[in-house]
Amino acid sequence: MILDSPHNQHVKFFRELREAKGRAEHGAFLAEGARLIGEALAAEWPIVAAAVSETPALAAMEIARALQGGKWPCLELTARAFRSLSDEQSPQGVAIAASIGRARLDEIAAAPGDVLAVAWELRDPGNMGTLVRTAEFLGCKALVAVGDCVDLFEPKVVRATAGAIFRLPLAEVKPDEFWAWAEAQSVTVAATVSEGGSPPEQMSAEGPVAVVIGSEAHGLPEAVARRAQARITIPRGGQVESLNAGVAAGIVLYAAARQVNTKDKG
Amino acid sequence: MILDSPHNQHVKFFRELREAKGRAEHGAFLAEGARLIGEALAAEWPIVAAAVSETPALAAMEIARALQGGKWPCLELTARAFRSLSDEQSPQGVAIAASIGRARLDEIAAAPGDVLAVAWELRDPGNMGTLVRTAEFLGCKALVAVGDCVDLFEPKVVRATAGAIFRLPLAEVKPDEFWAWAEAQSVTVAATVSEGGSPPEQMSAEGPVAVVIGSEAHGLPEAVARRAQARITIPRGGQVESLNAGVAAGIVLYAAARQVNTKDKG
Repeated sequence: MILDSPHNQHVKFFRELREAKGRAEHGAFLAEGARLIGEALAAEWPIVAAAVSETPALAAMEIARALQGGKWPCLELTARAFRSLSDEQSPQGVAIAASIGRARLDEIAAAPGDVLAVAWELRDPGNMGTLVRTAEFLGCKALVAVGDCVDLFEPKVVRATAGAIFRLPLAEVKPDEFWAWAEAQSVTVAATVSEGGSPPEQMSAEGPVAVVIGSEAHGLPEAVARRAQARITIPRGGQVESLNAGVAAGIVLYAAARQVNTKDKG
Repeated sequence: MILDSPHNQHVKFFRELREAKGRAEHGAFLAEGARLIGEALAAEWPIVAAAVSETPALAAMEIARALQGGKWPCLELTARAFRSLSDEQSPQGVAIAASIGRARLDEIAAAPGDVLAVAWELRDPGNMGTLVRTAEFLGCKALVAVGDCVDLFEPKVVRATAGAIFRLPLAEVKPDEFWAWAEAQSVTVAATVSEGGSPPEQMSAEGPVAVVIGSEAHGLPEAVARRAQARITIPRGGQVESLNAGVAAGIVLYAAARQVNTKDKG
């Protein structure tokens, strides 16, 4: 049976995942499109339910078939009903409700050579998703979201991760919990600050390193920068005020990953 | 006189700058908001005309006054008329028509120690704007857009540059012109490729370096990578397919800038 009504309760279930309230209620988040869902399937991520349009995009045909042949309930929808649940401007016609999986920070054992990405009150969904994508690509151990960050499972964040959300452990904690964990695990906390720190490639890589990135608008709180063991600043050659937060995080995380990598070899 | 009609010819002039055709006709592009316009004023960029809402946002009050006291024509608009020309979802109520200024590649003399950012058929406006911002921040000499790139002066690009567009020389050329210039100026062309290249920090920095970045969707054409003197690959530690193009460009440009910087000192 192909569902056509946006008011159908199953269609509504998917639509509700676009909002924090719905995600909390259902314990699931929305992922759309061939690329994202392909990563979820490859990672064998737990899927609660799937939704497939009767007219999926060409690029999504194979994924649509995989979703229809899976061990989860799969809705068949008209294009109209699919559009009503989709968060995309041009939906590909494939969506999943993916189980929300958070890591517990106290279960993340940091070893020498580990790099962790720490987002501190990062509010922008695009920057957060890009950070998850970058951290996973570079082989970071986990992403830790500290304090009042954007919801990691909102559609814009999920999209910007390009599927890395299904690969990288994600923890959400309060500032106190973060500091307690860092101390207990002897993690070197490196704060990225706009001035006064060392260049990224001079970062000390003794033991595990947690690279802390602040919000694009406000940077890191002064108290966080002071409490960190190291302060990192990307040297500026031009006149504009700052880098995009995602780009800055990429440069610093890359330097940390290479430091650690080089030590391993040496 | 405060204009209220979206059909007023002066309001229409601004609105037309949102499209390539209008920009070509008027030789100007649209820049909005306190931050962007602040950078334009600081850089003493040629301004063709300004538009100010009678109710600008608090953050834009000072810029509104500066625009009203400038040596260019300044329209006063109702909020409704301003919205009709704005490309922003929440307009701050200040806009300028900035003169389009392109650099001629053959007038860019590359010296040892110079790094240039080269966008090769880069189509995404956000990535292009971020690249301009990153290149300016890191002190690159210029940005060269080669082949069929997104229009450098479209509103989304301009916004993502965060004002760097008013600081960095921008050239648009065909592939043949780029190669001829690189040869004539003995520029080392370093192509960023997804596999098989050297890590960024091992980039040779003899003479000027042009770091070439391809599109997010397709990467660099094979022929470009082959013809370049160096191939750069960011080592992957995780499982996702790729980095965001803006982040990848940032990592490679930073490494190039630091190589050059270190040589200067040594």
